[in-house]
Amino acid sequence: MNTDIHAYLAERRRVIDEALRSYLPPPTKKPRILHEAMSHSLFAGGKRLRPTLCLAACEAVGGDSAAALPLACAVECVHTYSLIHDDLPAMDNDDWRRGKPTLHKIYGEAVAILAGDALLAEAFEIACRYPGGSYGSAVVVGELARASGSRALVAGQVADLEAEGKEISVRELRAIHLRKTGALITTSLRLGAMAGEASRESLRAITEFGRFLGLAFQVIDDILDLTQTRETLGKSAGKDLAAEKATYPRLLGLEGAQQAAQRYTARAHEALAALGTRGATLAALARHLLARES
Amino acid sequence: MNTDIHAYLAERRRVIDEALRSYLPPPTKKPRILHEAMSHSLFAGGKRLRPTLCLAACEAVGGDSAAALPLACAVECVHTYSLIHDDLPAMDNDDWRRGKPTLHKIYGEAVAILAGDALLAEAFEIACRYPGGSYGSAVVVGELARASGSRALVAGQVADLEAEGKEISVRELRAIHLRKTGALITTSLRLGAMAGEASRESLRAITEFGRFLGLAFQVIDDILDLTQTRETLGKSAGKDLAAEKATYPRLLGLEGAQQAAQRYTARAHEALAALGTRGATLAALARHLLARES
Repeated sequence: MNTDIHAYLAERRRVIDEALRSYLPPPTKKPRILHEAMSHSLFAGGKRLRPTLCLAACEAVGGDSAAALPLACAVECVHTYSLIHDDLPAMDNDDWRRGKPTLHKIYGEAVAILAGDALLAEAFEIACRYPGGSYGSAVVVGELARASGSRALVAGQVADLEAEGKEISVRELRAIHLRKTGALITTSLRLGAMAGEASRESLRAITEFGRFLGLAFQVIDDILDLTQTRETLGKSAGKDLAAEKATYPRLLGLEGAQQAAQRYTARAHEALAALGTRGATLAALARHLLARES
Repeated sequence: MNTDIHAYLAERRRVIDEALRSYLPPPTKKPRILHEAMSHSLFAGGKRLRPTLCLAACEAVGGDSAAALPLACAVECVHTYSLIHDDLPAMDNDDWRRGKPTLHKIYGEAVAILAGDALLAEAFEIACRYPGGSYGSAVVVGELARASGSRALVAGQVADLEAEGKEISVRELRAIHLRKTGALITTSLRLGAMAGEASRESLRAITEFGRFLGLAFQVIDDILDLTQTRETLGKSAGKDLAAEKATYPRLLGLEGAQQAAQRYTARAHEALAALGTRGATLAALARHLLARES
């Protein structure tokens, strides 16, 4: 299965990258610095986790993943915009991302802010290419907007900044990460399932899967920040500790955090039961994420 | 007519403000600092020009403006986000807007960036409330995304920053403003017309009107920056000169710029001819904008 999942991920990545290149304005388009910056971040070696989950969820409910492709690419644009803005000096002030200097280190703050803005707008333009089915365009695009906004993604980033240097509970930490990481992961899966014309029952199962996968993903991210080097991660390591960020290892200890990641992953697997054998690829993706090292 | 247009603007403003309050999360919602900041900017005394044009365009093609209300509010959210980000220290570094300190002066840069981001996402969530008609939701929301992104609004801001301190031609200046100001004004009108089920001919006339109205609007903005005080404008005056910004008065002289504003306004009026008497409100709005003092 390990070889299988790597081949699967590589193939999906190829499909997603090709679609992103066809949807986005080319980096040579004027203003060139803006389109170059957008492309730079979008093709800086991201793992394409969210769009892959979107396509896999579409297939897991019996759909053709081609219908979900614009939504998968839209989600990746939202994710990339959020990384660019999170790295800004006024936010997490991070110099490294995916083994390369962060966007504002290369292009300056103004262009980094504007490239992030443009990727967020672009996400909705791409999402509007979704042809619509039993879940209409307004429902699907509206859900992406909600997951990107002040009730989810941005709320999570604000709460994360507010929690720096403060003592918070595991429950509060969970609430931050459900919005900061979990909402977009869950939405990626839900949009794919909707593009696949999911039944209400299947959509509920996919949503539950996303909720626990998102939590597991964040716990593992926190563990990796503590245990891995910058070379492995491709971004600054140990930053959470330095910034006095609330993290799972800090609240639960390293072993406790590892147990939490396994527990959340187990819950994610349980949710897939409702999908029967068609949930196998999502299950393999969840196992892969639990075992990842960067 | 002068009293009429003021009464009309006041009434529209009330309708738009009420709708915005009903669509947006309340400022008391957590994270409170984020929702407060969003509300602060959105209700900081904006003239509601773009949403008013949107509703008026809907009526000018024979539609019921209620159908256009979500689109009108979405456009105002995009406009407000763009002002917040344009004012940031890394961009125009402006301390005053609509007679009040700019958002980052009150809430800090991180919250200002995130409040702008959230308003942009919110715009699309609100736009998805448009019920759709002969112009479907995907077409209408997709056009708003295009006008907000790297091909229009953001492109204009990048080109504007790049032009600072450089000698550019009137033609290049026009190209900047068609994207920076013109695109969103034209889109406001087009979305309203689409919500009003405009014929292709009417939509073409509205688009032409928007193009010239947008240019006239920007020339007048440049003139006011040069001739008015901060008290009248509610924002820093004389900033363009200090930042060596390319402006119409700088390239054409004050009198030349005033003539250009009149010429563009005349072209806007001509475009309205295709709409017959139903274009009267849009014509009154164009006259009002030419005569404005802030």
